[in-house]
Amino acid sequence: MESERHLSERIQSILDSYETLGGISYRDGDHLPSRSSIKSLLNQLNEILFPGYFDTTAISNQNLPYVIGQKVIAAMEIMITEIAKSLTWQARETGTALNQDPRVMARQVVDAFFDEIPALRTLLKKDIIATYAGDPAATTEAEIILAYPGFHATTVYRIAHFLFQRDVPLIPRMMTEISHNETGIDIHPGAKIGESFCIDHGTGIVIGETSEIGNNVKLYQGVTLGALSIPKTKSKKKRHPTLGDNIVVYAETTILGGDTTIGSDSVIGGNVWITQSIPANSKIYLSSDYQQLIKSGRNRAED
Amino acid sequence: MESERHLSERIQSILDSYETLGGISYRDGDHLPSRSSIKSLLNQLNEILFPGYFDTTAISNQNLPYVIGQKVIAAMEIMITEIAKSLTWQARETGTALNQDPRVMARQVVDAFFDEIPALRTLLKKDIIATYAGDPAATTEAEIILAYPGFHATTVYRIAHFLFQRDVPLIPRMMTEISHNETGIDIHPGAKIGESFCIDHGTGIVIGETSEIGNNVKLYQGVTLGALSIPKTKSKKKRHPTLGDNIVVYAETTILGGDTTIGSDSVIGGNVWITQSIPANSKIYLSSDYQQLIKSGRNRAED
Amino acid sequence: MESERHLSERIQSILDSYETLGGISYRDGDHLPSRSSIKSLLNQLNEILFPGYFDTTAISNQNLPYVIGQKVIAAMEIMITEIAKSLTWQARETGTALNQDPRVMARQVVDAFFDEIPALRTLLKKDIIATYAGDPAATTEAEIILAYPGFHATTVYRIAHFLFQRDVPLIPRMMTEISHNETGIDIHPGAKIGESFCIDHGTGIVIGETSEIGNNVKLYQGVTLGALSIPKTKSKKKRHPTLGDNIVVYAETTILGGDTTIGSDSVIGGNVWITQSIPANSKIYLSSDYQQLIKSGRNRAED
Repeated sequence: MESERHLSERIQSILDSYETLGGISYRDGDHLPSRSSIKSLLNQLNEILFPGYFDTTAISNQNLPYVIGQKVIAAMEIMITEIAKSLTWQARETGTALNQDPRVMARQVVDAFFDEIPALRTLLKKDIIATYAGDPAATTEAEIILAYPGFHATTVYRIAHFLFQRDVPLIPRMMTEISHNETGIDIHPGAKIGESFCIDHGTGIVIGETSEIGNNVKLYQGVTLGALSIPKTKSKKKRHPTLGDNIVVYAETTILGGDTTIGSDSVIGGNVWITQSIPANSKIYLSSDYQQLIKSGRNRAED
Repeated sequence: MESERHLSERIQSILDSYETLGGISYRDGDHLPSRSSIKSLLNQLNEILFPGYFDTTAISNQNLPYVIGQKVIAAMEIMITEIAKSLTWQARETGTALNQDPRVMARQVVDAFFDEIPALRTLLKKDIIATYAGDPAATTEAEIILAYPGFHATTVYRIAHFLFQRDVPLIPRMMTEISHNETGIDIHPGAKIGESFCIDHGTGIVIGETSEIGNNVKLYQGVTLGALSIPKTKSKKKRHPTLGDNIVVYAETTILGGDTTIGSDSVIGGNVWITQSIPANSKIYLSSDYQQLIKSGRNRAED
Repeated sequence: MESERHLSERIQSILDSYETLGGISYRDGDHLPSRSSIKSLLNQLNEILFPGYFDTTAISNQNLPYVIGQKVIAAMEIMITEIAKSLTWQARETGTALNQDPRVMARQVVDAFFDEIPALRTLLKKDIIATYAGDPAATTEAEIILAYPGFHATTVYRIAHFLFQRDVPLIPRMMTEISHNETGIDIHPGAKIGESFCIDHGTGIVIGETSEIGNNVKLYQGVTLGALSIPKTKSKKKRHPTLGDNIVVYAETTILGGDTTIGSDSVIGGNVWITQSIPANSKIYLSSDYQQLIKSGRNRAED
């Protein structure tokens, strides 16, 4: 009895806290996009982009049109529903009125996205070829589609970037964060990334919102393209670096700043911290002098 | 026939190995806490802390009390069951007797935890505000709750730390490892972290067991607050650094040692390795001399 | 009506893109191994290796033989099916004929794998002991099995390495990538790793295909054992470093190159970039001169 009463008081005090800390909760009828629906949508889009690779039932030339037709219709429906939710939510959040039925607005974006799929497949094929060429350990292109987290993160980024460019709220970021959770690779959907992009290993990579990356660039694990600290008021400025074409950046290197440019045809070694521009055709490595500094080091970890 | 017989021999030899390598297995009736139950519990606690953000069904002002009441009761039951298992397991493991029915002991902790939820929500609200202020890419607070792995890891840490402080065995560490799997952020439940904590990107962050972090601290991806190598016998000592208030630590920096203190109002740049204390108001960066060393570097990766 | 027609055109143009970009898709009847089946297989193997730790139902001395017998039979069946798929796929991909029924070939590998389980458990027990000894925060061996991502990644690597050595295509790499997704630790199944291996924290670790690691080695988070850039044509060469026995490598250090050897009984500090061999008994740290460079650094991040 005692304990039962206490339980209802405990629940009431949690409910009360929703009133006093209103901003922290969301419970007023305009539903936010669902993370689990977005996750399921990404799986379906992967099955449409690469038929036969991720399906649990076998795909044959006979059943392909039916399987894909059904998948496309189902994926479009989820995508329209979730985008409509995000548009309704944003209108309320910013106190603006929607010009149209949000489902109609969502449908236009979704139609455009599915029209883009053949072009998206062409782009992803170039990423696969670049990854195969760039990684001596890759034995087949199938292995890249099935097992390369860098390629998976690139696929999700290219989907999310399309929606980001069309001003879909919340969902592009939710998509890349689902992929971040899966792969450890954090690409903001606002970043601009050229063709034939290759990520090797990839864990810990961060590519910030206003980064620009040219064609034929390869990034290793732990590379950050980040911002120097700026006040929130300058958040619309370009804050992240620009990389030209044909560039390799090795593991754990950090490149910071919106004015920082890495010229084309450059190689940046590992564990380097860069906050200024580098001309084209550069090769930037920790020098042999630095290596000597290391060798003379005292054993600081044994005290 | 041949093959059938071989199968039974094969199974028997696996069973035999459980006898000879007893320590590796657990199969004696006192059940360990279940990882899948703990994972499900964390999801339910997230739904209670942020109603409407993670629910699959819509939350309205009308159904809120019923939905939350039911969720609280269900989550308490799982939490009591799993904590009771962990207490029983620990008593056996250490050869000590429990003073009370383990479910009664577990219930006390769980009651205290649910009493703490309004205070926990206040604390998390401050983390959200700090994250919003600290990240120019954040457009709304909703985005932080829905899509920021750093905030998710902080939420799980604050739940696990509560249980760690009350000497619940195994479960706090299981909680933060579930979050580590999801986010790449590894916070030991024993660490002490102040208010208005902000993690940006976050992949690769490690915060060791005896770390102490003040208020208004921001950590970027790949930052380690770790231990210098010490023998197991000194494992009760403070082994991890102490950070004051109002500190930013940039990407991939490693700070090691229990005597290492970073004074308040300091900024620590990226890719730095620190094993000694830094006074308040410091700004520690790789110097321009170091930058020159880099530029003169030979191309070691092209041989 | 308009919209319905457009939908069928849209689906057709996606189907057309499968024809023109054939290489990107797989849909011709020889089914690829299923990622979800491999994931489920790894869970079952974990339950067989560590009975009572991951099971949802309780394991007792009474039900153990039946539970394990049933699990072994089920796991063998999945493993045979998936390996047979991968062998059929490879034969087609390389245009060679299989000498035998692929299920018979798969069965031989699977029988050998299950014969190896007692030895594998002995090996994993040594990894557990090394991890317990090496981490002051570890309170019990059970905690390591239940909650250490480094130990989980090591377990999956040892399973995958067995299959890699027996030339099973695709599946070893799929296994280690599933574990990479879960733990942020990327170990190529081709790497050779000795006994008593310990990974602490682990996020961001990369161990390349031709790495060789001796006994009693401990790696911290963010350590890379990687390749210097080489053309695809040299991909059969040893491209990754060799580590002797009794070595510790601290966080975020990058060691590159197939000719790079770290001699036994060495300690390598954090945030170091190594592309040349280190003799036995070395202690390599960033030096105090380097520390001074840091202190004189200008504040580059405040502009």
